Amino acid sequence: MQHIDALWADFTRPIVTAEDYIASLRGRRMNVFFMGERVVEPVDHPVIFPSINAMAETYRLASERPELGGVKSDIADAQTNRFLHVPTGPEDLVTKHEMQRELGRRTGTCFQRCVGLDAIGSCHSVTFDIDAERGSDYYRRFIGFLKRAQTANIVIGGAMTDPKGDRSKSPHQQADPDLFLHVSKRDDKGIYVSGAKMHQTGAVNSHWLIFMPTMRMTDADKDWAVVGAVRVDAPGLTYIVGRQTNDTRIVDGGSMDAGNAQFAGQESLIVFEDVFVPYEHVFMDGEWQYAATLVERFTTYHRSSYVCKTGLGDVLIGAAAEAASHNGVESVSHIKDKLVEMTHLNETIYSSCMAAAYRARPMASGAWLNDEMLSNVAKHNVTRFPFEISRLAQDIAGGLVVTMPSEKDLQNNEVGPLIRKFLQGKSGVDTVDRMRILRLIENMTIGRNAVGYLTESLHGAGSPQAQRIQIARGMKIDDKKQRARHLAGIAETRPKNA
Amino acid sequence: MQHIDALWADFTRPIVTAEDYIASLRGRRMNVFFMGERVVEPVDHPVIFPSINAMAETYRLASERPELGGVKSDIADAQTNRFLHVPTGPEDLVTKHEMQRELGRRTGTCFQRCVGLDAIGSCHSVTFDIDAERGSDYYRRFIGFLKRAQTANIVIGGAMTDPKGDRSKSPHQQADPDLFLHVSKRDDKGIYVSGAKMHQTGAVNSHWLIFMPTMRMTDADKDWAVVGAVRVDAPGLTYIVGRQTNDTRIVDGGSMDAGNAQFAGQESLIVFEDVFVPYEHVFMDGEWQYAATLVERFTTYHRSSYVCKTGLGDVLIGAAAEAASHNGVESVSHIKDKLVEMTHLNETIYSSCMAAAYRARPMASGAWLNDEMLSNVAKHNVTRFPFEISRLAQDIAGGLVVTMPSEKDLQNNEVGPLIRKFLQGKSGVDTVDRMRILRLIENMTIGRNAVGYLTESLHGAGSPQAQRIQIARGMKIDDKKQRARHLAGIAETRPKNA
Amino acid sequence: MQHIDALWADFTRPIVTAEDYIASLRGRRMNVFFMGERVVEPVDHPVIFPSINAMAETYRLASERPELGGVKSDIADAQTNRFLHVPTGPEDLVTKHEMQRELGRRTGTCFQRCVGLDAIGSCHSVTFDIDAERGSDYYRRFIGFLKRAQTANIVIGGAMTDPKGDRSKSPHQQADPDLFLHVSKRDDKGIYVSGAKMHQTGAVNSHWLIFMPTMRMTDADKDWAVVGAVRVDAPGLTYIVGRQTNDTRIVDGGSMDAGNAQFAGQESLIVFEDVFVPYEHVFMDGEWQYAATLVERFTTYHRSSYVCKTGLGDVLIGAAAEAASHNGVESVSHIKDKLVEMTHLNETIYSSCMAAAYRARPMASGAWLNDEMLSNVAKHNVTRFPFEISRLAQDIAGGLVVTMPSEKDLQNNEVGPLIRKFLQGKSGVDTVDRMRILRLIENMTIGRNAVGYLTESLHGAGSPQAQRIQIARGMKIDDKKQRARHLAGIAETRPKNA
Amino acid sequence: MQHIDALWADFTRPIVTAEDYIASLRGRRMNVFFMGERVVEPVDHPVIFPSINAMAETYRLASERPELGGVKSDIADAQTNRFLHVPTGPEDLVTKHEMQRELGRRTGTCFQRCVGLDAIGSCHSVTFDIDAERGSDYYRRFIGFLKRAQTANIVIGGAMTDPKGDRSKSPHQQADPDLFLHVSKRDDKGIYVSGAKMHQTGAVNSHWLIFMPTMRMTDADKDWAVVGAVRVDAPGLTYIVGRQTNDTRIVDGGSMDAGNAQFAGQESLIVFEDVFVPYEHVFMDGEWQYAATLVERFTTYHRSSYVCKTGLGDVLIGAAAEAASHNGVESVSHIKDKLVEMTHLNETIYSSCMAAAYRARPMASGAWLNDEMLSNVAKHNVTRFPFEISRLAQDIAGGLVVTMPSEKDLQNNEVGPLIRKFLQGKSGVDTVDRMRILRLIENMTIGRNAVGYLTESLHGAGSPQAQRIQIARGMKIDDKKQRARHLAGIAETRPKNA
Repeated sequence: MQHIDALWADFTRPIVTAEDYIASLRGRRMNVFFMGERVVEPVDHPVIFPSINAMAETYRLASERPELGGVKSDIADAQTNRFLHVPTGPEDLVTKHEMQRELGRRTGTCFQRCVGLDAIGSCHSVTFDIDAERGSDYYRRFIGFLKRAQTANIVIGGAMTDPKGDRSKSPHQQADPDLFLHVSKRDDKGIYVSGAKMHQTGAVNSHWLIFMPTMRMTDADKDWAVVGAVRVDAPGLTYIVGRQTNDTRIVDGGSMDAGNAQFAGQESLIVFEDVFVPYEHVFMDGEWQYAATLVERFTTYHRSSYVCKTGLGDVLIGAAAEAASHNGVESVSHIKDKLVEMTHLNETIYSSCMAAAYRARPMASGAWLNDEMLSNVAKHNVTRFPFEISRLAQDIAGGLVVTMPSEKDLQNNEVGPLIRKFLQGKSGVDTVDRMRILRLIENMTIGRNAVGYLTESLHGAGSPQAQRIQIARGMKIDDKKQRARHLAGIAETRPKNA
Repeated sequence: MQHIDALWADFTRPIVTAEDYIASLRGRRMNVFFMGERVVEPVDHPVIFPSINAMAETYRLASERPELGGVKSDIADAQTNRFLHVPTGPEDLVTKHEMQRELGRRTGTCFQRCVGLDAIGSCHSVTFDIDAERGSDYYRRFIGFLKRAQTANIVIGGAMTDPKGDRSKSPHQQADPDLFLHVSKRDDKGIYVSGAKMHQTGAVNSHWLIFMPTMRMTDADKDWAVVGAVRVDAPGLTYIVGRQTNDTRIVDGGSMDAGNAQFAGQESLIVFEDVFVPYEHVFMDGEWQYAATLVERFTTYHRSSYVCKTGLGDVLIGAAAEAASHNGVESVSHIKDKLVEMTHLNETIYSSCMAAAYRARPMASGAWLNDEMLSNVAKHNVTRFPFEISRLAQDIAGGLVVTMPSEKDLQNNEVGPLIRKFLQGKSGVDTVDRMRILRLIENMTIGRNAVGYLTESLHGAGSPQAQRIQIARGMKIDDKKQRARHLAGIAETRPKNA
Repeated sequence: MQHIDALWADFTRPIVTAEDYIASLRGRRMNVFFMGERVVEPVDHPVIFPSINAMAETYRLASERPELGGVKSDIADAQTNRFLHVPTGPEDLVTKHEMQRELGRRTGTCFQRCVGLDAIGSCHSVTFDIDAERGSDYYRRFIGFLKRAQTANIVIGGAMTDPKGDRSKSPHQQADPDLFLHVSKRDDKGIYVSGAKMHQTGAVNSHWLIFMPTMRMTDADKDWAVVGAVRVDAPGLTYIVGRQTNDTRIVDGGSMDAGNAQFAGQESLIVFEDVFVPYEHVFMDGEWQYAATLVERFTTYHRSSYVCKTGLGDVLIGAAAEAASHNGVESVSHIKDKLVEMTHLNETIYSSCMAAAYRARPMASGAWLNDEMLSNVAKHNVTRFPFEISRLAQDIAGGLVVTMPSEKDLQNNEVGPLIRKFLQGKSGVDTVDRMRILRLIENMTIGRNAVGYLTESLHGAGSPQAQRIQIARGMKIDDKKQRARHLAGIAETRPKNA
Repeated sequence: MQHIDALWADFTRPIVTAEDYIASLRGRRMNVFFMGERVVEPVDHPVIFPSINAMAETYRLASERPELGGVKSDIADAQTNRFLHVPTGPEDLVTKHEMQRELGRRTGTCFQRCVGLDAIGSCHSVTFDIDAERGSDYYRRFIGFLKRAQTANIVIGGAMTDPKGDRSKSPHQQADPDLFLHVSKRDDKGIYVSGAKMHQTGAVNSHWLIFMPTMRMTDADKDWAVVGAVRVDAPGLTYIVGRQTNDTRIVDGGSMDAGNAQFAGQESLIVFEDVFVPYEHVFMDGEWQYAATLVERFTTYHRSSYVCKTGLGDVLIGAAAEAASHNGVESVSHIKDKLVEMTHLNETIYSSCMAAAYRARPMASGAWLNDEMLSNVAKHNVTRFPFEISRLAQDIAGGLVVTMPSEKDLQNNEVGPLIRKFLQGKSGVDTVDRMRILRLIENMTIGRNAVGYLTESLHGAGSPQAQRIQIARGMKIDDKKQRARHLAGIAETRPKNA
């Protein structure tokens, strides 16, 4: 295990505070690119930093509210961040979701740590099941890995979505084998993997990555049925950080035009070129039969994790109410009614996610998994309601959301006073405060964090159609038909137990 | 207590089976009217019987699945029907909701017992609270009443909605004091109440009724702030059973045109004319301050009780799938997609109700109450989604739902064979089965049970606007605004604990 | 033409008034069945009469507002009912739609005459086109037929929808050839047709029927590609009138419970058993290539004809406003807002239909046809918005819509006074008026005329998916893609003329 | 008129081509600010130029399709751009809307010229009406102005929206009189106006501006009831161009990241400081009674002008179809269904706008005005459907819309090849083309042109509530109630003429 110890040598002192975390990201030699340039030190990159700061909030929360942001882990026998915890009962999932909503409220964006968390949860039970059926050694390896991660209290990212190429073909049929991540070669120490993962949330801000297959596989796809963990700075990894709406606002003015200067999300394309993974960090290696299981458990966890968007919803509802108050119209009936509608939709999402947590069921490994139907239903609501909440927020806020002069104009001697004069709201409201709230609404509905609040709500954890397929699978249509036949008076079909 | 014992003399042998229950309704001397005629024996009235049979299903379920339909009560120290049980923890509410969905599935209609159940739950904690603050004796009385009811395993109905007259006036301001139920006189034995309750579900099928005020009151409304229990056959009570869509279908043909010949709902106008209530059965008498509390707790329970509609949804989804199958189009993509959408909406309702149960909180009396915000959100979804599910069911089923010949035509020698010839569906499908399923869809979407599935879903437990008012009250807008201000960078407003 | 003259012998005096029309329906020997019984004189059948009366309104309108309900026809060189007129320009279609909305407002139901009208319009241009390409004689025959009909000012019904049997098979592939209407034999005088037509609107109330194929055909389906006109009392025709929600309300009480005692719709199953059609009344006979053309032109006309539902919408909006006024809440903001929403949806339907009329294009015969895309869009809105308008009407009206005592109870000496006392609304409102308005809302949202307002809005003129197919065909996706490529900066793709 | 001639001295040669137009904008001395800096030459500003180019498309269209983009004006007796034309019949409005849709298709953004156009239309009839009632001279002045403008074929902008300050107060009650534009002083030559106009579309790209009051006024607001025309470079005018989402994308990479590099919208805050207006260019001066009339006519025109968004919808539908095609999934049923839904919504908007044009009515001046109810309905649909179309476009396009690497990354030697390798779609699709289409979808749904497609669709020409107020005013509720009463059988209420 010596070579394994070496891989963990940088993580001897547990990360405790947000400052520890940020410091831990410095000085790594990662291949990170953004807008055509190599980013030597992501922490110092003004566009990337807000995403690091959003991740750091998970540590702040654990410091400030340890019962919510942290948990005592039996695996490491230590307090660890809740984002490293395998849920062992419904209450764990419930608390997880409360934490996610609270982090959404605190950051107003994607704090990027849920993919890793849900990867841990699903690997726990899937490695256990593989071992149980095939006598393999994955569960021990995984627990060993997780114990080290918990002890060091690091950030684990998850990587699932392959480029997929021609969507009508399975991995082994692709013209280019790299269009799905796969074992490119192997030796007695471990495997080498090549390919890419797309849309990877917070990867640059993580310490280790767990990579997983993205879909159901066949016997011929064995080489693509691979799960493992690598350091984010492992040789052969390249990160290309995607552009986001208004990403450069943070550098082209002061803090105001950004809308939310402190926090943002991050997604990147990760390229793997013969990246080495020692066997001790390999958790699936050819067991293609379990690829679909892993994906389904992961998405079941992850679709409920979108409860975080209700935290963003809280912020946006608050911003809209504040904007209305600045205009002196908060008590006008149609404004109140829109705030109620936004809340209703937001809490509907919340209730689906929470119900999916409360109705969790245990896996053989002892990990508990959200109810699959309700988790899909929850995510499906997430693909719809934030768009309507966002539309209502813009309705309340008014057109200034998209026509407002820049902060630099506000600071200009000639036009600054004109802006202050003409953008004043209700008496007693500070014009700059008014502008800040409108910029926040822009940020969340048509700016940088709309990426997370809207588009990611559509596609993260699977696009809408993916949930519909799962809902179709789980809808027990035969039982429903039998109930109907019985009540319609069609003979001999009274359901058993009914 | 002798006079009280006399009132309970008819209920010495506990009702166990559905047959017991139906028998127990016979021979009572109630003033029941329907379509201009006195109904001497409701059990024998063909239009009323299906509603009795739906109520009877609550006993069938308790016999067949005692853990779901029944419960061991600490109050009576006996197994009792779950509809008589005060929930003592979230799990009780969860099981209650599972029972309600199952009964919805079994009957495809309103089984009418939830109002009484939710009256029991809310009286338990409110009588306790009044006593605690005012040293009154209501809780003991109520527990005594409930113990007798549980021991006899009877049906308790609840009566809340007053006629209200001029809605801009409070009870004491009405031209006619009877427009809200009130104490009309009192003596040393008890009180006399006069007025009326509207839209009362299953009243004729109950044994006792609990009456409650319908809204917030003031000091001047003292006489209207009254809660008590009466036998349904108490002197001075008159029941006028309301007409329902297609109510007479059951008598104008065979069983088929009714769509669901076995089960239906029932609502009536109950008139109280100086109805005597001994003090032992009075649970609030002038404590106007608690009227709003009682209403809010009742509606919080009752709005989640609308989870029953997901059971009806199950039946309707099954019926639509069966109709599609009869047409040979079940695997057509737009049909499958509509079934998925129906399921998604149905499960969204379910998850809101269940989340409201899991997140219950305890009252001082030891009764647990659903989460208020989520219960309102749940009911608000019920005011919308069944309408869309119903529309989709009709879309799948086709126009025959409303143009199909009658069962009598089918039995006619001349045209019966023509109907069989031309209404045949996919090969192998029995034409009569096809017609039965279409009649069931008619029944639930534009027939007798559409009353319960659609209109009652709008107005039962409070009309849509009532939920919006409660959502507005609970939406914690100040906290949300503070979160927004913080993220917008407005100084000195970071929320505490955030 | 002597035998033809004989067929028209009963129609020598033009029908002018509604009374003429009703009288003209008497004494015919049709095979009509309803609820298992032969209906000797439909005019005297209380359940059927309201549908006759709705049809009669088309004559009343023509008498009262001849410019709207009638038109000067060049074919007959006489004033005729507009329902017999072939549109010869956009203005004709515009006026037609205004007439349809007005009749919807006057009757609150389906007045059943649009199918025949739209059959006339489509036969005009299709017979012309067949003749032009094939040298046949259909157009002359059709004009001859139409001239007689206009001169007699009779009601022509249209019959299109075949039973279809196994939907995966074309007409000639069906196990039973009768599952699509077809030529069963022919002689030198004419053809004989057998089969059936389903959901036929107002057939019993018509004088003649035009039958048409229901879908695209192939060479092998020649015998099924047949169009012709028959008297409704032709030997071999049998009518089975379908049941409607609450159809018997009209006979089980006074006029009130029916909600709308004067007017209703009517749909029946028409069976054809070797019905003779002289060649002079045959307008297509084997030209299978034109079956699809005829269906498409018919549905293009007919989908816009659903503008009538905006007339029903007017009534329902008015009823909801009246109900709110009875409750004294008409000026409450959420009530007003719902009335606005209902109006918005209603006028959106109206605008789609009207736009489809204004953007009509001429056929070779000189008939003008609504814009196909917009007509499909219009009807597709009709499959959605009336359901939401209906839900909002029930929301405003309150639960009494489905729980109200019967008119017979109101007339009862014992309970009548109680109902008057407790159902009183705002001071000054007559309780019976209040009840009448609520019954009308019941009638249109969950009663007899909900059949026409809701379910028929879904399926009439083609179910929702039928419109989606046509929208897909007309959406010019290649032009749209080219526009996108051009703006995206993809080279060499600037569209011509753009 | 000499001083007037001087004001028009720069406009002696008519602008014919787009190149003429762009040249005409150079060398003007306007006070324009953007992002804190004075913009000396807006034409050369890379962020502003795309908005100029969008405006220029109105000239290109007039050159390429003179019958659509231009018109022969009777006022100037010359061919002029259609954006300078007063509609003299429904067909003019119909053609106007077709032109607007076509320009939306060509530019994918707001081409900014409709405010001026609709200002011309409304001033035509309102000045005529004022003169007719008060003997003033405004109409002659206005026609003189318009003739010069048409002859020179220039761009006229419109300016309506005042800052409004405290919304509960009328203009004269504001603490600062400048919060509504007003006459600050006057002399024998003309008036001076001060104040500001917000959200002004394309003002910097115009030659002249017509300013108008924004709402109903009272006698005390006389000084604020002012309409006039000024050159955009008149002394005292300052323009502060607002920030738009992703506005700087055009300068921070190549052309690709911008999504639509050629075209964009523009909105600015215009400050008026004692701007002189000679009486010859004053079209209302104290006639406060007509302020509301002017606003209502303007908004009636302008709400239908939002038909332009259906042109943007065409582009977005095309882009989504193209993206689906790149992924090889265009024929998948749920994708096709989403494209149909997008088209259905887009054409519903179109039909409302077109119906409002066809049903126009004439003003006394001879100008024709869209139907008010339908125009409000049209715009109200615009506040909803583009949001759903946009959501569906993102659904089809996939998450890459918001996670894609930048164009600079594509050009980078190290990562460019990786992007080409991993972002390849279906075989045969150029990866760069694929990226370009996704960037266009980003541009229209969460990028620069989403400002126009979404937020402006909400608030332009009045926010949603403004339409609801107008719909409420026009909904003829009394007639609707009477129809309902009649059908409900309430005596003596049959409507006249019905």
